[in-house]
Amino acid sequence: MDSQEQSLIQSFMRRSRELIDLKSVLEILTWDQETMMPSRAGPFRARQFSALSALYHQKLTSPDLGETLERLSTEELGLWPQAAVREMRREHEKAVKLPEELVRELAETTSLAYGAWVEARQKSDFASFSPWLEKVLKLKQEEARCLQFSDSLYEALLDHYEPGMTVGRLDELFAVIRPNLTSLLHQILSASKQPDRDLLKGKFPAAQQEAFGRDVLTAMGFQWDAGRLDRSPHPFCSGLSPLDVRITTRYSEEDFCSSLFGMIHEGGHALYEQGLDPEHYGSLACDGISLGIHESQSRLWENQIARSRAFWDHWFPRLLQTFPGQLDHVSLEDFVHAINRVEASLIRVEADEVSYGLHVILRYELEKQMVEGDLKVQDLEEAWNTSMKEYLEIVPSNSAEGVLQDVHWSMGGFGYFPTYLLGNLYGAQIFHQVGEELPDLEESIAAGNLIPLREWLGQQIHGKGKTVGAEELIEQISGKPLNSDYFLDYLKNKFTPLYGLS
Amino acid sequence: MDSQEQSLIQSFMRRSRELIDLKSVLEILTWDQETMMPSRAGPFRARQFSALSALYHQKLTSPDLGETLERLSTEELGLWPQAAVREMRREHEKAVKLPEELVRELAETTSLAYGAWVEARQKSDFASFSPWLEKVLKLKQEEARCLQFSDSLYEALLDHYEPGMTVGRLDELFAVIRPNLTSLLHQILSASKQPDRDLLKGKFPAAQQEAFGRDVLTAMGFQWDAGRLDRSPHPFCSGLSPLDVRITTRYSEEDFCSSLFGMIHEGGHALYEQGLDPEHYGSLACDGISLGIHESQSRLWENQIARSRAFWDHWFPRLLQTFPGQLDHVSLEDFVHAINRVEASLIRVEADEVSYGLHVILRYELEKQMVEGDLKVQDLEEAWNTSMKEYLEIVPSNSAEGVLQDVHWSMGGFGYFPTYLLGNLYGAQIFHQVGEELPDLEESIAAGNLIPLREWLGQQIHGKGKTVGAEELIEQISGKPLNSDYFLDYLKNKFTPLYGLS
Repeated sequence: MDSQEQSLIQSFMRRSRELIDLKSVLEILTWDQETMMPSRAGPFRARQFSALSALYHQKLTSPDLGETLERLSTEELGLWPQAAVREMRREHEKAVKLPEELVRELAETTSLAYGAWVEARQKSDFASFSPWLEKVLKLKQEEARCLQFSDSLYEALLDHYEPGMTVGRLDELFAVIRPNLTSLLHQILSASKQPDRDLLKGKFPAAQQEAFGRDVLTAMGFQWDAGRLDRSPHPFCSGLSPLDVRITTRYSEEDFCSSLFGMIHEGGHALYEQGLDPEHYGSLACDGISLGIHESQSRLWENQIARSRAFWDHWFPRLLQTFPGQLDHVSLEDFVHAINRVEASLIRVEADEVSYGLHVILRYELEKQMVEGDLKVQDLEEAWNTSMKEYLEIVPSNSAEGVLQDVHWSMGGFGYFPTYLLGNLYGAQIFHQVGEELPDLEESIAAGNLIPLREWLGQQIHGKGKTVGAEELIEQISGKPLNSDYFLDYLKNKFTPLYGLS
Repeated sequence: MDSQEQSLIQSFMRRSRELIDLKSVLEILTWDQETMMPSRAGPFRARQFSALSALYHQKLTSPDLGETLERLSTEELGLWPQAAVREMRREHEKAVKLPEELVRELAETTSLAYGAWVEARQKSDFASFSPWLEKVLKLKQEEARCLQFSDSLYEALLDHYEPGMTVGRLDELFAVIRPNLTSLLHQILSASKQPDRDLLKGKFPAAQQEAFGRDVLTAMGFQWDAGRLDRSPHPFCSGLSPLDVRITTRYSEEDFCSSLFGMIHEGGHALYEQGLDPEHYGSLACDGISLGIHESQSRLWENQIARSRAFWDHWFPRLLQTFPGQLDHVSLEDFVHAINRVEASLIRVEADEVSYGLHVILRYELEKQMVEGDLKVQDLEEAWNTSMKEYLEIVPSNSAEGVLQDVHWSMGGFGYFPTYLLGNLYGAQIFHQVGEELPDLEESIAAGNLIPLREWLGQQIHGKGKTVGAEELIEQISGKPLNSDYFLDYLKNKFTPLYGLS
């Protein structure tokens, strides 16, 4: 590399670092808003966001950066700088295709639509939200058109969250998954061996829930000197840097499962963020590969690990100690069955492992039709209810537990939902390989030692950042392309004995 | 105003809002760093600061802004826009005088010097800090030279914190105050009526301290939906906007006074910030007038109110209930005497109302000499110890409780210290007038009603923002220019009966 090329790459890295630094400040503003901000500060926070987002967009689209990216030859660069340049090109090229007016209008409209959604859900009134959804949808369609991505407008939006994934591929995968889930769900619901619904009822003080959750997170390898746990209305994980990863939860004193599995889920995301290499912080390559891969980590910890018998071998006695008198009559077997209860229910975020995928497929189909112009917002609620009946044989009695239940559409997050199911597929495929490579895993988990798993995931996934793509990673790990077999096999192998299926 | 002028002022306000929005994001980063940030995140936080500070400086010094400010005629503008333009001119003109290289070097050096100070204080090793202090001092002298302010380099720095104040004026004020404080201190220390040192000893759980402090803050009128209370190693108040004002404290379970008076002190700052008019947020005029005026608010609440007998008429029974068994043997009279104990002590932040001013004058004299080139850093410790002996008849046994005790110099805060004593003067002058205008104040306080005082301060001071200067405000309020009589009279009137002085 000659000195001119060296100075080009240095100038590029300086710009990249500045962009990442600004982006992480935006993350801090979001985290603070959800966890700490006093209630009346909202309007000023919106202004802080808007001022900083505008600056970020200006920096990202600057012609200077474009010129540097054009002149940079990546041939002689190593793996990480190459990925850094590739990812920046991707972001820059997308951003310059979007007129600033559209960016501003989207930011403003989604911010207002979010408020309208909160209110509409409280009143369970879809009619008051639908004009906002129409506006958001129109702007997102416009965005997709500007991106000139492929024949499918939906695919342009999907690509924000799951780079490289196509609509054709999703349709293919989901066409296999849907009937399999429906059939498994049907078998389970009509099985004679059913868990006791009331087993997990009791009074579980929030402080003890938090202490227990912190112990589990510690065992998972969460690094408290590089992270935090706080409360927020909607649980999330925020990776401000690999050395500052914050997760949140909420507590229901009647139901410790909701918070505990939530913490473990967010903990899975957090281990990913803490597992990124701080040395590469400031490069766009130092990030999660895709939302699907990110979700694979949280789902793996939440389901494959924390809903397993082996996990509770170690943790169940501690749970009984933590909540004296609340679960004394419950056997370990009944407990594990109860936390794996399958049912056709209305709310996605509370759904079990079997029915969860059906919720996601439903949303994917509806949002794809909306974005492609085949479904009008005014017909959305009816389409939703029809699909719920068809997929889950259950119909919401009001909009709040139906079409209004998710926040994503109000925020313009079209294309986001499929990554939740992809996460399950990636997760199962990865977990299968973990089992091959760590033959003592189950014993280790039963003994309370989760570190071998954390280290394996760290080496195979987290530390690689975005130097590989999602498909490439899955092939590297399992030797096979992404497919639904692992996920469907995992479900069958798990639920057949639990429910005494034939 | 013609349409061209209107569009000029609109463009100005847009820039002003953006600058304030970015500044408040910097404030959030600082608050988060002190209260929430995981320990290992420091280096990345420094980068976020540096990226955002650089952007802020670029925006503030932009030639576009300069041109707008030049073309803006303020004659036809109302009080608030006029002040907004005046304050922006002040900030812009200062900023453009400073070479970007100096700004960057100062940011980096003070950040490193702060770390060196923390370490040096822990080891009580002034020698390891002095090379850093020399660097900081040199850069601040350079800054003062660039600002081309007056004959006095020190005055250029003082003006950052107390606009309009001069060295001549300070020298004059302090020349009166010093002998008066020394003499009063001497009388008090040799008085026969002394408070019992051990009265306030006990075990005071942090949770109860916090609950009690929150009750006091609520009574003061702190708005919890526009603010927070958290813990941090060094207590402070952060006004992110008038609708987002955050104070912090720390708890010693052996000593409830430190936290309680600290919370009330920061609460006084917070009421000022919450009292700014949100309608004018985005204008530089929507801010505290000066650090001295800000300090007048905190000192007034901490001392004139919270160390008064009337205050404890209401709060003492509650304090006894809050800490059962800890203070049962203490009478209200003895308690009030104990919380007003005067002594010659080494640490400024723990000093009583009488000796506090002597600490400030000592620092003012030393830092003025350093900045003007009359005192070398290598001779600072000796000079410090000599002055302590002269002013307070007490000599530190090590650097940590002497020359290394304050953080300010490491951060380049030369010119900051005098505002602490000015705050006492302003506060006493203001409080005198409050007494004239609210004749029932003492009864109201004794009944636990602090709202009339909060409202008076809100109307007379907080709501005015920077539409008046410090001197102007004091004259508006009291009809007289700033002077030390009120402060010295207040001390005499308070401590004469307490200590049975003649």
